[in-house]
Amino acid sequence: MPIVRIELFPGRPTEVKHELAREITATLERVAGIKPSATTVVFIEVEPTDWIVGGEPFARQR
Amino acid sequence: MPIVRIELFPGRPTEVKHELAREITATLERVAGIKPSATTVVFIEVEPTDWIVGGEPFARQR
Amino acid sequence: MPIVRIELFPGRPTEVKHELAREITATLERVAGIKPSATTVVFIEVEPTDWIVGGEPFARQR
Amino acid sequence: MPIVRIELFPGRPTEVKHELAREITATLERVAGIKPSATTVVFIEVEPTDWIVGGEPFARQR
Amino acid sequence: MPIVRIELFPGRPTEVKHELAREITATLERVAGIKPSATTVVFIEVEPTDWIVGGEPFARQR
Amino acid sequence: MPIVRIELFPGRPTEVKHELAREITATLERVAGIKPSATTVVFIEVEPTDWIVGGEPFARQR
Repeated sequence: MPIVRIELFPGRPTEVKHELAREITATLERVAGIKPSATTVVFIEVEPTDWIVGGEPFARQR
Repeated sequence: MPIVRIELFPGRPTEVKHELAREITATLERVAGIKPSATTVVFIEVEPTDWIVGGEPFARQR
Repeated sequence: MPIVRIELFPGRPTEVKHELAREITATLERVAGIKPSATTVVFIEVEPTDWIVGGEPFARQR
Repeated sequence: MPIVRIELFPGRPTEVKHELAREITATLERVAGIKPSATTVVFIEVEPTDWIVGGEPFARQR
Repeated sequence: MPIVRIELFPGRPTEVKHELAREITATLERVAGIKPSATTVVFIEVEPTDWIVGGEPFARQR
Repeated sequence: MPIVRIELFPGRPTEVKHELAREITATLERVAGIKPSATTVVFIEVEPTDWIVGGEPFARQR
C-alpha cells in the first residue's frame, strides 16, 4: 500500500522507468517487508522549464 | 474546501469526468454536509505506461 | 487504477470517511465502468489554519 | 527545503511562470528566512475541463 | 484557480504561514493577473526526518 | 531533480525509512544516471483508516 510518486523530467525511455519501478518495488520488499503487489509506482513528468530551484529555472542552470 | 484529486488513465470522455465530479460533489454534500461550492475536483491523467503495480507496468497486465 | 486523494479538514468521524470512500468507489464503477478493486481512496487531513483562500486563513473566514 | 507545487491552467507564458517562481522564492526568504537555494517551485498544468468547482466544470463557469 | 501546495518543515508560527500565503496570493495577482479569491494556498508539514536529499536525511545534514 | 514522494502507513522505524531513501537514491543513479544530490525523497504517512481500497478500509482487510 505504499504509493510511490516520482516527479522527473520527460525523456527517460519507458524501459528505464519500468526498471526503476521494479527496483524500487524490490527495495520496499527487501528493506521494509512490503509485498510487491502492494506497491504502486506512478511517474509524473515535469518540463525543465516548469521546475525552478533557487529562483532559477532548471533549464537555464545547466 | 475539500480538494479531490483523481489520478486516472487518459481516454475518458469529458462528459464522463464531469459526471464523476458532479456525483462526487453531491456525495460530499449528502454524506458529510459539505456545501457543493466548497468542493474542488481535479483530474490528473497518467499514462498506463507510467503506472506500475507490483513491479509490472499496468499496460502489460491486461 | 484511479487514485482518489481527498484533502479535507480534520474532525470527520471515521465512519463518514469510509462511507464517502465507498460511495465514490461505487460512483467510479457506475459512471466510468471501473471495477471497485482498482480504486484507492486516500484521505489527507489539513488543519483550517494551514488552508488559505484569497489570502485569508480559512479559520478566520467562518 | 520547501517544495512549492502550483497547479494552474495552461497558457501562461514561460516568463510569467519564472517571474512567479522568483518572487515566491524571494518571499520565502524575506518572510520565513529560507535561503533561496533551498526552495523548489514546480508548475503542474491542469486543463480547465479537468477542473471542477461546485460540480461545475471551470470552462463552463466563465 | 491555482492551488499552491507548500511542503515545509513544521515549526513556523501560524502568522508566518499566513503572511506567506497573503504575499503569494498577491504575487499571483500582480504577476499573472489572477484574482485573489481564486487562489488557494495549502501548507503540508513534513518532519525533517522524513525528508531526504542526496540519500542523507535532512536532520543529519545540519 | 526527481522528487520521490512515498505515501505509506505510519510505524516504520526512522532507520528503515532512511535506508529506503538511500537505496532509492542509489537506484536512480545506477539505472537512470541521476546524481544523488539531485534526488529528494519525502515520506508522507497515512493512517490505515484513511486508506481505502475497493471500498474497504485497509485496516479491516487484514
